[in-house]
Amino acid sequence: MYSFKDDYSEGAHQKILQALVKTNFEQEDGYGMDSHSLRAIKLIKESVDDESVDVHFISGGTQTNLLAISCCLKPHEACVSAKTGHIATHETGAIEATGHKIITIDNLEGKLSEEAIKPILNQYNFEYSVKPRAVYISNPTELGTIYTKDELKSLYEFCKRNDLLLYLDGARLSSALTVKEANLTLKDINKYTDAFFFGGTKNGALLGEALIFSNEAFKTDFRYMLKQRGAMLAKGRIIGIQFETLLENGLYLELANHARKLAQKMQKELKKIGIEFLIEAPTNQIFPLFSNEIINELKKDFDFHIWSILDSGNSYIRLVFSWATEEKVVDEFIDKVKKIKGVI
Amino acid sequence: MYSFKDDYSEGAHQKILQALVKTNFEQEDGYGMDSHSLRAIKLIKESVDDESVDVHFISGGTQTNLLAISCCLKPHEACVSAKTGHIATHETGAIEATGHKIITIDNLEGKLSEEAIKPILNQYNFEYSVKPRAVYISNPTELGTIYTKDELKSLYEFCKRNDLLLYLDGARLSSALTVKEANLTLKDINKYTDAFFFGGTKNGALLGEALIFSNEAFKTDFRYMLKQRGAMLAKGRIIGIQFETLLENGLYLELANHARKLAQKMQKELKKIGIEFLIEAPTNQIFPLFSNEIINELKKDFDFHIWSILDSGNSYIRLVFSWATEEKVVDEFIDKVKKIKGVI
Amino acid sequence: MYSFKDDYSEGAHQKILQALVKTNFEQEDGYGMDSHSLRAIKLIKESVDDESVDVHFISGGTQTNLLAISCCLKPHEACVSAKTGHIATHETGAIEATGHKIITIDNLEGKLSEEAIKPILNQYNFEYSVKPRAVYISNPTELGTIYTKDELKSLYEFCKRNDLLLYLDGARLSSALTVKEANLTLKDINKYTDAFFFGGTKNGALLGEALIFSNEAFKTDFRYMLKQRGAMLAKGRIIGIQFETLLENGLYLELANHARKLAQKMQKELKKIGIEFLIEAPTNQIFPLFSNEIINELKKDFDFHIWSILDSGNSYIRLVFSWATEEKVVDEFIDKVKKIKGVI
Amino acid sequence: MYSFKDDYSEGAHQKILQALVKTNFEQEDGYGMDSHSLRAIKLIKESVDDESVDVHFISGGTQTNLLAISCCLKPHEACVSAKTGHIATHETGAIEATGHKIITIDNLEGKLSEEAIKPILNQYNFEYSVKPRAVYISNPTELGTIYTKDELKSLYEFCKRNDLLLYLDGARLSSALTVKEANLTLKDINKYTDAFFFGGTKNGALLGEALIFSNEAFKTDFRYMLKQRGAMLAKGRIIGIQFETLLENGLYLELANHARKLAQKMQKELKKIGIEFLIEAPTNQIFPLFSNEIINELKKDFDFHIWSILDSGNSYIRLVFSWATEEKVVDEFIDKVKKIKGVI
Repeated sequence: MYSFKDDYSEGAHQKILQALVKTNFEQEDGYGMDSHSLRAIKLIKESVDDESVDVHFISGGTQTNLLAISCCLKPHEACVSAKTGHIATHETGAIEATGHKIITIDNLEGKLSEEAIKPILNQYNFEYSVKPRAVYISNPTELGTIYTKDELKSLYEFCKRNDLLLYLDGARLSSALTVKEANLTLKDINKYTDAFFFGGTKNGALLGEALIFSNEAFKTDFRYMLKQRGAMLAKGRIIGIQFETLLENGLYLELANHARKLAQKMQKELKKIGIEFLIEAPTNQIFPLFSNEIINELKKDFDFHIWSILDSGNSYIRLVFSWATEEKVVDEFIDKVKKIKGVI
Repeated sequence: MYSFKDDYSEGAHQKILQALVKTNFEQEDGYGMDSHSLRAIKLIKESVDDESVDVHFISGGTQTNLLAISCCLKPHEACVSAKTGHIATHETGAIEATGHKIITIDNLEGKLSEEAIKPILNQYNFEYSVKPRAVYISNPTELGTIYTKDELKSLYEFCKRNDLLLYLDGARLSSALTVKEANLTLKDINKYTDAFFFGGTKNGALLGEALIFSNEAFKTDFRYMLKQRGAMLAKGRIIGIQFETLLENGLYLELANHARKLAQKMQKELKKIGIEFLIEAPTNQIFPLFSNEIINELKKDFDFHIWSILDSGNSYIRLVFSWATEEKVVDEFIDKVKKIKGVI
Repeated sequence: MYSFKDDYSEGAHQKILQALVKTNFEQEDGYGMDSHSLRAIKLIKESVDDESVDVHFISGGTQTNLLAISCCLKPHEACVSAKTGHIATHETGAIEATGHKIITIDNLEGKLSEEAIKPILNQYNFEYSVKPRAVYISNPTELGTIYTKDELKSLYEFCKRNDLLLYLDGARLSSALTVKEANLTLKDINKYTDAFFFGGTKNGALLGEALIFSNEAFKTDFRYMLKQRGAMLAKGRIIGIQFETLLENGLYLELANHARKLAQKMQKELKKIGIEFLIEAPTNQIFPLFSNEIINELKKDFDFHIWSILDSGNSYIRLVFSWATEEKVVDEFIDKVKKIKGVI
Repeated sequence: MYSFKDDYSEGAHQKILQALVKTNFEQEDGYGMDSHSLRAIKLIKESVDDESVDVHFISGGTQTNLLAISCCLKPHEACVSAKTGHIATHETGAIEATGHKIITIDNLEGKLSEEAIKPILNQYNFEYSVKPRAVYISNPTELGTIYTKDELKSLYEFCKRNDLLLYLDGARLSSALTVKEANLTLKDINKYTDAFFFGGTKNGALLGEALIFSNEAFKTDFRYMLKQRGAMLAKGRIIGIQFETLLENGLYLELANHARKLAQKMQKELKKIGIEFLIEAPTNQIFPLFSNEIINELKKDFDFHIWSILDSGNSYIRLVFSWATEEKVVDEFIDKVKKIKGVI
């Protein structure tokens, strides 16, 4: 039984485990001041080609989001997000728990743009409403869509004209970076946001996200806030070592590419035999449509989530591919579908 | 150069690393629902001989403290702590950031008791003051002192008579459990508190604390709050596996005992040659007094923190021993002192 | 120039001023423990025919809302509201500032019902979402619509079946109580809510709202929270005296009735001469449609807000009537419209 | 039975009531934008001789304190206060409820100074502690002591050298301003603080405090926060009118002087006949020492609080004098004591 339920079902990539084992008895300073965290920071600064950024390592995405957003807002300031944004739907009110409202914008594709945000600025313009100050986007979005370089640049420039801080949640950013059509690099992401994080947890690490601040509004005393929210690990080294490993020789892109290629292979092959998809998904998650009979048959060998029910006889399922997914299993899945459909 | 600065300078005990490697390619559910976390919970329930407790794994102590304390208080309720309590001094206002005041009690030994708390209940007894509801203690305390079973029982009974919730911070609890005179087991700790955590980070794990609730006031919907504060790890397995390993065959006590025995050996040997100590410290931290000359000489081979300056020529230093400290290094330190003092 | 902009343009009804003057030199206890506040509480208990309720006086509606809602929620619990609810639109994130999310439901009429809330309960049913616990409604709503007794009863019973707390914002409740068709009394409101407030500020008082709790979930230690949020006035008497006066001989209904009757007269008379209205508004606010020319002409003698622009030539305006509005002015307004329209 | 329990036992000075009655039917804009509030702001700017200040009117002291302090702090920043400070003892954790720690300094006289604060800056100097940013003082203090101009100036300059914001709680500031030896004016207070409020409630108003910001750190968007905390009254005029009246012809000083003179007369006369006092109190509160027998005898005609018990036979009582206290009653009290002591 192989599970396509998510990209955090296994432990860590072997190079990461090896690095943890290899460095285990080095004595290091705590709280993120160890030599491996410092080197990982150096590697990130090189990747974004910007010495002036601040970099912090945090154990998970929700914590990263609440820290980044709450650290730059005054009590009456709010964060704008797509209605499907992770902070608005899947973080149990984490932002509100820091005292700030999220202003949501309804949008079928999960993305924000100048057109989407402008009406909000007109509506939220007086002292009986909160004041929009931060803009939260995710890339890839929660719906699997992605921003192109032009889209991101244009959104960023809109934000700058309107004194808004653009923050990007990159829990699966590596996957977006491997999509050629998006034409995006880490350097672009840094250039066209005020702050962003890119995720390790969903790209081969045991845990850890790297939060990068280019705008001064976020930087001051951020380590105080890390400590206050319980986000400063005594053995900070364990995230430092993992990012050090991921950033060496571009391992993070290699792993993301592996996952994405398998997803795209599966999508392409299933399409060939007439399977329909919810959306054209460019990253490591795909959403094929199957009849209940096929789903039940597939469930005997594979695990996955039902994404949405189309009608009483058919549902979209979600298949997630990771650094740990083997091509062999992908082929087995495709073959099984083909067999059921009688095309082989 | 060997460092006695703290007990989180190295990675993890080898059995823990081996368990991580061994289980790496198992596919597990996320967010703490994996088989290893569930088994670790089972082992903890057996250790405290109480099936009814709730157990949660959290990455660090500050986060554990803020979650446990904020989840059981109404907006006007406060937490009582010794003035030296970690939540009052070393957590950057984490409790206040959840909206709650800490009422501190001055106490030279870092411990609380009925006598210490009673005047607070008399003083904070009306609606223009916050209402004391939780009591925070640490064992061992921040000063290295410990509670005996009788002391803990008596404090707990006082709390029950006064509708107070007793919460114990056990970041280094294993060390306290290895002190014979304290006469305390995990089962006792659970029996005589409403909630407590015992720490993995400072006892051989990469990260992780186990939070145990026996009182219903803490239990309801706690996983919502874990998620809200960003404390629910996608790969919850990485803490589960570590506690599973620590609890198997009593490894957590074995490691704590190793550290404590080396600390006590050093304390005993240094006393023999006339070195004085700040306090009689029963756990894995000791505080010898040295002249500046000796300190400078020792610093050539060993690293440690100056704890407090006695006068212009002498200071107390802090030496911390861990599961990773080798007896050989302890002997080298003792010999070096002896040589400097001219006793060998 | 007479202003129809709102119902808080003047000071207080003369009986209230007289009561303030008459009692001025009585020495009274502070913080709401004065004899007038206590008598006003007694009168409210009689009005709702329920000795067991708790009553608190608070200076304004936003403060009342934030206190009532935050006092009954645990950190992960949320409040459900219509999208147009005052707490969601006009209180600058006051609820979020206490740490709680508002879940909004889109609804053209500003009202909530079982049908509207049910899908929310299905959607927000797991630990990565907040947990709906309180339901906020306003009566009259922000759109001027009202609940009938049957609607309120049915909503309340739905809430009880689903462990939800129903809270009613009655900033202009008196006005709703004077609408015959609604068939509602203060006693009904108390019976079919868990907590509600009825407003003095917009019904002839200088300031002050009366908050009534029938459900125990709100009651415990509420005065602590009043003090904590800065809502306990040293001279609590000044709200007590005003509610005492409003409740004597039903003055609050008399004032509301006066305002509503003038509003309905105006609505009826304008309809007779063909003026259209945004909605059939049953309380003390009406929304006639005028051409820009007429609006400009009317603006010479009267002040009012433009409510919404219909097209480039016509807008709905809002006219608010209060205890202080004189019938003479209403007649002058009607006559002026008639003259402009050439019907007299 | 006359009560000396506090200075908010009566309603308002007659000139204030007259102003409320006189302006009652004027139609004014809401939320503090009325002509009276605007004029009161103008009068305050003249009083402090500083056009650049921002002025806001708030209903009570606790709300004023929590708004002023929370609006200028980032999440990890704290407020320093004397241990006896009102915010630390009598406001039910209002500051902590906004997320900020209060660092208290033990000080017998209730005052802060460079000497008192310096050790705090040395102690709170790293990221595991909160960061001191605001300094809270009250004048007069909760113990009745006051700051001289030199003391305030010196404290302010220390704050400026250390990037601290000095905030002064002037709930009874008028009383301090009437003490000649202090040599302080409103202008000085404004010059040597970053923000302060002076109180109406305890100096003849029904309610209301005037909050004055000279430092930009407080000013931005403060009205948003007023609204968010529920502190913006719909009929803002009722505080505006009262401060307009108090500031016309220096009524606020006249009332404070009346109260203080009676207090000082009583203190002087009682001293003459050998009564001892807790402290030499220069404002409108005095603390004579009486035996239990005398206290019981006095209680037959006067009401007052026992301040502190000296021993089983004697206690200090607190007598508070206000704008409403009549000299006749003061004389009666003195005579009664004299009779009991047999000196007349």
